[in-house]
Amino acid sequence: MTIKPLGDRVVIKMVEAEETTKSGIILAGSAKEKPQVAQVLAVGPGGLVEGKEVQMQVKVNDKVLISKYAGTEVKIDGEELIIVRQSDILAIVE
Amino acid sequence: MTIKPLGDRVVIKMVEAEETTKSGIILAGSAKEKPQVAQVLAVGPGGLVEGKEVQMQVKVNDKVLISKYAGTEVKIDGEELIIVRQSDILAIVE
Amino acid sequence: MTIKPLGDRVVIKMVEAEETTKSGIILAGSAKEKPQVAQVLAVGPGGLVEGKEVQMQVKVNDKVLISKYAGTEVKIDGEELIIVRQSDILAIVE
Amino acid sequence: MTIKPLGDRVVIKMVEAEETTKSGIILAGSAKEKPQVAQVLAVGPGGLVEGKEVQMQVKVNDKVLISKYAGTEVKIDGEELIIVRQSDILAIVE
Amino acid sequence: MTIKPLGDRVVIKMVEAEETTKSGIILAGSAKEKPQVAQVLAVGPGGLVEGKEVQMQVKVNDKVLISKYAGTEVKIDGEELIIVRQSDILAIVE
Amino acid sequence: MTIKPLGDRVVIKMVEAEETTKSGIILAGSAKEKPQVAQVLAVGPGGLVEGKEVQMQVKVNDKVLISKYAGTEVKIDGEELIIVRQSDILAIVE
Amino acid sequence: MTIKPLGDRVVIKMVEAEETTKSGIILAGSAKEKPQVAQVLAVGPGGLVEGKEVQMQVKVNDKVLISKYAGTEVKIDGEELIIVRQSDILAIVE
Repeated sequence: MTIKPLGDRVVIKMVEAEETTKSGIILAGSAKEKPQVAQVLAVGPGGLVEGKEVQMQVKVNDKVLISKYAGTEVKIDGEELIIVRQSDILAIVE
Repeated sequence: MTIKPLGDRVVIKMVEAEETTKSGIILAGSAKEKPQVAQVLAVGPGGLVEGKEVQMQVKVNDKVLISKYAGTEVKIDGEELIIVRQSDILAIVE
Repeated sequence: MTIKPLGDRVVIKMVEAEETTKSGIILAGSAKEKPQVAQVLAVGPGGLVEGKEVQMQVKVNDKVLISKYAGTEVKIDGEELIIVRQSDILAIVE
Repeated sequence: MTIKPLGDRVVIKMVEAEETTKSGIILAGSAKEKPQVAQVLAVGPGGLVEGKEVQMQVKVNDKVLISKYAGTEVKIDGEELIIVRQSDILAIVE
Repeated sequence: MTIKPLGDRVVIKMVEAEETTKSGIILAGSAKEKPQVAQVLAVGPGGLVEGKEVQMQVKVNDKVLISKYAGTEVKIDGEELIIVRQSDILAIVE
Repeated sequence: MTIKPLGDRVVIKMVEAEETTKSGIILAGSAKEKPQVAQVLAVGPGGLVEGKEVQMQVKVNDKVLISKYAGTEVKIDGEELIIVRQSDILAIVE
Repeated sequence: MTIKPLGDRVVIKMVEAEETTKSGIILAGSAKEKPQVAQVLAVGPGGLVEGKEVQMQVKVNDKVLISKYAGTEVKIDGEELIIVRQSDILAIVE
């Protein structure tokens, strides 16, 4: 079963804290907007979104920082996923 | 009797919870914005909506996730339907 | 005496509840935004509305669903009419 | 003495209630936004208004419905006038 | 000493009440937004203002109605002046 | 040490009150938005600012009126400076 | 490990107060929006951001003034970084 996000939406899965530490990223716990590392699972086609051209800059498997606990949670085939807009993604980490 | 939605509007029918489980999707019950699985019954023509070009990305019979209990309920020929804008649709599920 | 609506405005007349039932449409009474069935009496020319191009999609005699008790009521030659913008119209019913 | 309205502004004069009745229009008195019948005295040139192209659709002597007690009152040569934007005008009545 | 307003700004000087009466204009004193008659002293070049093309429609020495006590007061060489945007000007009176 | 403002930003230095009086400008002390005379020290390149084309209309050494105590104060090499957007500048005085 | 900011985002690192003093910049401590000097570590590609073309004006190693404690803090490989949008950057200092 697959999810095909519409427009500039991106399906992501939060990366576990342990995995985060290994990768060298420790997020500031006291920040009001907690950024989080997530992995990209599916990417919308972009194109015209609310009348504005959007080019998708992330791709499947990218590790990304999201600006806060943004988007909508869904549970699919037992996995907890989040659907965000690309504009909620701050950066790609490598 | 038929409904022809205007602009970027889409007529959907919520999929029953049982059917949702079978398809492998379980929605997070505690989320503030509860996404829901629905089936598309009718799709507006898109085109200029509030002066912006909208291309319709869903089609009749698509299963879709909607971001919340969006739109306006109508009861037609005994069926409870909802009219949403396409931008309220998060993703197509297959 | 006639009313010629400006821009994207549409003159409608609510369809009586009895007539609504006959046509097979029963509106959800508890919904916060009650959609209503109305008949189109006059349609503005569209064109540039607040600087945006609007194409009129409804025509005289269409039965339409409106999203709520939108628009401005007027009483002309004894008839109670409502002037709405086309964007307040959800769908055409046939 | 004359008033030349700027942009999409229109100078109107409310039509007396008695005159309104004669013409067959009775306005719903309980409506929150009371529409009113007025006569157009002067029309701005339209053109670029806040960066958007506006085409004037009313002309001098038109009878118009305005959406509420919109605009700014002025008293010129003893006459009470109102200056509204064209977008405050709902319809032309004939 | 001169003031050269930027963009769509206009430097005006309120016309005294006595002079206003002579010219036949009496402003409604109870209106919440009191329109006022002023004389134009300097006019900005127009052009791109906040990314939108503005064409100046008033010129030096025009008598104008302004929608309310808009703009910013300055006192230059003993004269009390006001700097408004052209969109605060309702009409030119002649 | 130099400051190169970005976009439509302008670095200004308030002109002392004494100097202001000499130049013939006396600002209305009771006005809620106190305009102030300042001298331009550095001007951003303009160009695309938030997707809109901005053309810079002020240049270094211009005396300008600013609409209020706008912008952000910085102290550089002992001088108190203010960084404003060009749209906060009302007029150039000569 | 690297961070590649998306769109018009910029990764910066605040410059220590001691370093700030040496460079001759002393920030006004009482200002409500405290500007701060930071060093640019990574710059997004710009391009279409929310449908608007953005050209990046800062580059890696620039010293910049930011308008307030803007953006989102992240801690990467032991360093505290901040991700801001370019529009939060007031000026480049040299």
